[in-house]
Amino acid sequence: MPFSFELLTEDTHTAARAGVIHTPHGDIPTPVFAPVGTQATVKTLTPADLQELGATLILSNTYHLYLRPGADLIADFGGLHHFMQWPRPILTDSGGFQVFSLEGLRKIDDDGVTFRSHIDGSYHRFTPEVVIGIQEKLGADIIMAFDECPPPHDYEYNVKSLERTHRWAERCKAAQTRSDQALYGIVQGGIFADLRAQSAEFLAELDFPGYGIGGLSVGETKAQMHEMLEVMHPILPRHKPRYLMGVGSPEDLFECVARGVDQFDCVLPTRIARNGAVFTKQGRVNLRNARFAADKNPIEPDCQCYTCRTFSLAYLRHLLMAEEILALRLTTLHNLHFMLDTMRRIRQSILAGTFLSYKDDFLATYRPVKSRQ
Amino acid sequence: MPFSFELLTEDTHTAARAGVIHTPHGDIPTPVFAPVGTQATVKTLTPADLQELGATLILSNTYHLYLRPGADLIADFGGLHHFMQWPRPILTDSGGFQVFSLEGLRKIDDDGVTFRSHIDGSYHRFTPEVVIGIQEKLGADIIMAFDECPPPHDYEYNVKSLERTHRWAERCKAAQTRSDQALYGIVQGGIFADLRAQSAEFLAELDFPGYGIGGLSVGETKAQMHEMLEVMHPILPRHKPRYLMGVGSPEDLFECVARGVDQFDCVLPTRIARNGAVFTKQGRVNLRNARFAADKNPIEPDCQCYTCRTFSLAYLRHLLMAEEILALRLTTLHNLHFMLDTMRRIRQSILAGTFLSYKDDFLATYRPVKSRQ
Repeated sequence: MPFSFELLTEDTHTAARAGVIHTPHGDIPTPVFAPVGTQATVKTLTPADLQELGATLILSNTYHLYLRPGADLIADFGGLHHFMQWPRPILTDSGGFQVFSLEGLRKIDDDGVTFRSHIDGSYHRFTPEVVIGIQEKLGADIIMAFDECPPPHDYEYNVKSLERTHRWAERCKAAQTRSDQALYGIVQGGIFADLRAQSAEFLAELDFPGYGIGGLSVGETKAQMHEMLEVMHPILPRHKPRYLMGVGSPEDLFECVARGVDQFDCVLPTRIARNGAVFTKQGRVNLRNARFAADKNPIEPDCQCYTCRTFSLAYLRHLLMAEEILALRLTTLHNLHFMLDTMRRIRQSILAGTFLSYKDDFLATYRPVKSRQ
Repeated sequence: MPFSFELLTEDTHTAARAGVIHTPHGDIPTPVFAPVGTQATVKTLTPADLQELGATLILSNTYHLYLRPGADLIADFGGLHHFMQWPRPILTDSGGFQVFSLEGLRKIDDDGVTFRSHIDGSYHRFTPEVVIGIQEKLGADIIMAFDECPPPHDYEYNVKSLERTHRWAERCKAAQTRSDQALYGIVQGGIFADLRAQSAEFLAELDFPGYGIGGLSVGETKAQMHEMLEVMHPILPRHKPRYLMGVGSPEDLFECVARGVDQFDCVLPTRIARNGAVFTKQGRVNLRNARFAADKNPIEPDCQCYTCRTFSLAYLRHLLMAEEILALRLTTLHNLHFMLDTMRRIRQSILAGTFLSYKDDFLATYRPVKSRQ
């Protein structure tokens, strides 16, 4: 089945939407949270684990896979789905975010970016055409335009950068040769309402099958992020999915779904898991804490994940203190279950017309971490 | 069901035996290979993984669990089975091997050993009574007598040490209070046939429900190990299981089963897996080798483990080169499957009267690593 987005319900109290993204590798009920599999693996988990968790979409990174093992090798295996044995939908980012993060190792011009590999220091060049070529070799269901991710607070720079991002979006569209991949344009514009509106309008004109929202969660406040989403919401095409890139925390899911976002990805649940931190309905908890040393309860009594169905807090803490690898898998399983299950409940509540009360209930007990992620 | 050993078949061409060990947590078909779960976890794997692999017995380490999380804590959880959620049989070692390995951090006398923790340097003392008390708190199905593991080549020292080990075996037996755990005595005697014979005779007199064979695979040659097994075979009670501690490699399984061994444990398959090395019918292979970079085949085409049913050599190599944690689990799954499956085939061949030809076939193609493990 080719790519399409079916909008099922729009919430009456908020901008929340429930729908389905149809892709060649299956359906993605939205809103959706995508676990991150940077190097063709969601760290510590097998594809079987991810299917058992009910993941419907995962993200992988163009920059990382281009450098290692290489796009040609993955193409020779029939693409990323076959290489990593994940049968469901995949999204690849454009590599832009990683490349622009290589401070001191990259040089931007209007045509593209020259950068040095973080692995061996070798020189490489990404242009819109190169990046689309790589993503066509990787073969994900959803691919992303090559964009510049500028510092969010510098207005003058954002004006100039946005112009470049828009030219690159046109070039990406022109460079695309495969019809079985959905290419999303990416809205930029920092924390500036006029630039965000201008970008959303420009890209809407180009009629992409979906829209990424880039350059947020990179140093601005939550209030600024929410304001930008509110600015873009009425401008972005109603019948296209909106993907807030690199967001979010559990509280972000609620606040950003309420502002019209359909798609999320974030390393947060898997990264903090590997530091021994887990999500609970009350907030994040670090399992190394001595108060868990003899605790016979699971992380959450009503959680249905394998970790909570099987192990006590005391055992999980023991594994972490003993630096056992198994700990990282068990905390990752729990955190991804928490995110995916919360998102399933959000979707159900939108369909049932009870999203706002579910949001209020969740946020009444969930205590977010004060500092930004 | 209380502990018992049922001898089903004795091979006519070799000393190989097939049987069943009955324990309170289920049956253990023998000969058996036990994966090692030092810190109450077989590294990288869940209990569900181990059950799927068909493991029937795992080993855990008294020394490690005594120091962290502590035997009282595990007892408070109802024992190790409940703490780690492994429902099948467990064996705990006596901690002797670990304590005697703490060169410079331990002092032996005839009553016991004083040692310092490798974790925090704190002082501790193990005596036969202390070690039995700890193992009763841990609650394994099979527990081991506290023995000294001496340097294998020093005859004078082994004479003196063996006397001590025998006194400790008597004290362990006297100290035991639980009737639902099988306490194995441990034969020592280095590489000296007269001492091994003397030790086997002495311990046989004490009528333990099973016998450990200690102090091998610690610096002697394979030929010396085989000779010692041949010396002990006719002396050890025919209707008791014999457990060769800390052995072995795939080739060891064949050679030592042929010399009357019923039980094995070894960190080899799990440890080399975490270095990227896997067993094949031709011998060990390191998956980091560049020749696997584009190889679409599994590790072994006819292997039924999850790793071989799912992933290519190229993908496994990619995970290793990218230092992805998932690699360690996938190689561990394969290596344990290789050991457990080989042992199941060995047992079947003993029951079918074809052990010797299976042994010859296996060893004709399997190229062992030259250096000792």
